[in-house]
Amino acid sequence: MSKKTLNNDIVGLKFDPVPVKWRDNDTMLYALAVGCTDADLDFVYEGRGPKVIPTYGVIPGMTVLGGLNDNVDINLMMVLHGEQSIEMYRPIPPRPKNATAQGSIANVYDKGEGKAAVIIAECEVSDDDGPILKTSSSIFVRGSGGFGGDRGPSTKGVNTPPDREPDHVIEYKTLPQQGALYRLTGDRVPLHIDPEFAKMAGYEKPFMHGLCTYGFTCRAIMEAVCDNDPENFVSLSGRFADQVWFGDSVITKLWLTEPGEAIVQVETQTGSVVLSQAKATFKQS
Amino acid sequence: MSKKTLNNDIVGLKFDPVPVKWRDNDTMLYALAVGCTDADLDFVYEGRGPKVIPTYGVIPGMTVLGGLNDNVDINLMMVLHGEQSIEMYRPIPPRPKNATAQGSIANVYDKGEGKAAVIIAECEVSDDDGPILKTSSSIFVRGSGGFGGDRGPSTKGVNTPPDREPDHVIEYKTLPQQGALYRLTGDRVPLHIDPEFAKMAGYEKPFMHGLCTYGFTCRAIMEAVCDNDPENFVSLSGRFADQVWFGDSVITKLWLTEPGEAIVQVETQTGSVVLSQAKATFKQS
Repeated sequence: MSKKTLNNDIVGLKFDPVPVKWRDNDTMLYALAVGCTDADLDFVYEGRGPKVIPTYGVIPGMTVLGGLNDNVDINLMMVLHGEQSIEMYRPIPPRPKNATAQGSIANVYDKGEGKAAVIIAECEVSDDDGPILKTSSSIFVRGSGGFGGDRGPSTKGVNTPPDREPDHVIEYKTLPQQGALYRLTGDRVPLHIDPEFAKMAGYEKPFMHGLCTYGFTCRAIMEAVCDNDPENFVSLSGRFADQVWFGDSVITKLWLTEPGEAIVQVETQTGSVVLSQAKATFKQS
Repeated sequence: MSKKTLNNDIVGLKFDPVPVKWRDNDTMLYALAVGCTDADLDFVYEGRGPKVIPTYGVIPGMTVLGGLNDNVDINLMMVLHGEQSIEMYRPIPPRPKNATAQGSIANVYDKGEGKAAVIIAECEVSDDDGPILKTSSSIFVRGSGGFGGDRGPSTKGVNTPPDREPDHVIEYKTLPQQGALYRLTGDRVPLHIDPEFAKMAGYEKPFMHGLCTYGFTCRAIMEAVCDNDPENFVSLSGRFADQVWFGDSVITKLWLTEPGEAIVQVETQTGSVVLSQAKATFKQS
């Protein structure tokens, strides 16, 4: 099968469902990788379930990149992960039966000749009991714009924090080895561990996976408004805005705007905004 | 097959070799579980090999407990892990081909009627390239003494530190979540994670796996006298003497006694000796 050209024609493309598998060892490792400790026993001990941090779902969800690579002519070296959202239909089981991930392309935007194409890649994860969750990622492909596509909606002003103090501020400190741990959940891009590789890529040193920050954010939302119960967590969307360095604090600010809804912004101890234009929804208890 | 009675007759028993499997994800997780950070890149990044912490070998080596349980009539609830040794024939490959573990019973001692039987259980781990390492564990089976066996050699005075300052002191701090991480390498005994279980077992709270302390000790020996190269590490034997609590410092003291040989004692910041009568051997560079 020849690969399709990156243009408007790929919108609506559905990839073959792929089997995905996880067990409690994987979800407990993920919990530790996004900063849980022995104080978060529900998530790191099978004797309590274990419960699964909802953003674990981005890991099977990321198989959509494989479908993209197999079906569309893109250079993975030119790819940047811009935004990420996850929506839960139900809590993730720690030991699913026959789980699959079905990727698709929801949209493609064109930022202009010589600039980026943006692919909105979705992935639905299901098991024998039905759909579990859906992820959506905006994938920037640098240099692939100019195919005559739509620029896409402006995100200016979307999910901007209100001009007042946040209702919740949750701070977690990352470990020097946070990236070494997180990459064992599957994403071994050397940028997040190898000092020489990071320098070649133009960074001072390795930095956190954006999706690791995303997991810390999910934990903070769970702590602030979900009573730490995955049953209450519904969705999180946001945009990766800047690097988190290992050892940094991840400070999640929540502004409650509607019942079951909060605008979220994540900063580090320097004030640098690392996840912006973010929104969480949750069940009111 | 009926199980054999725990007495002198089981000495020399060889269990069927069992296939064991590990990949670099397992050895890198082990490295983080025994305290490595991003500063120990050789052990946590496949781009550098990865190298494998030699005491990773106790994990395939512990399959000998399965052979023991299948072949000898013992109550696993009454079992305590007393001493542990490991001897390396060569560095552990991060991706072995067709690895197997062959367990056997090297000796049985009898501490008297109503007291313990002690089983010296050995395990040789090999792959297609030949033997890799041998482990030896002394397994105390409480209440199983009095079968008319030998008391075994006295260990009094064995590997006692000389009456002088140690030649090397290496201190590592453990994490609150060290046990939550270590148990993902395979040993999920609730004693090391579950506060209620630990209380029922008579402890104030959960504490470190002895074999996790053992791994911290191996790292310290590697740092002090092996130039952090598994090629130079030959053996480590010692006796688990007291609990390490999560968050404690693990302080390894080495006294160089002969060329390529050191007496080792491991303490925590309170002065409590947690690994005693220990000895390491190594290649002189």
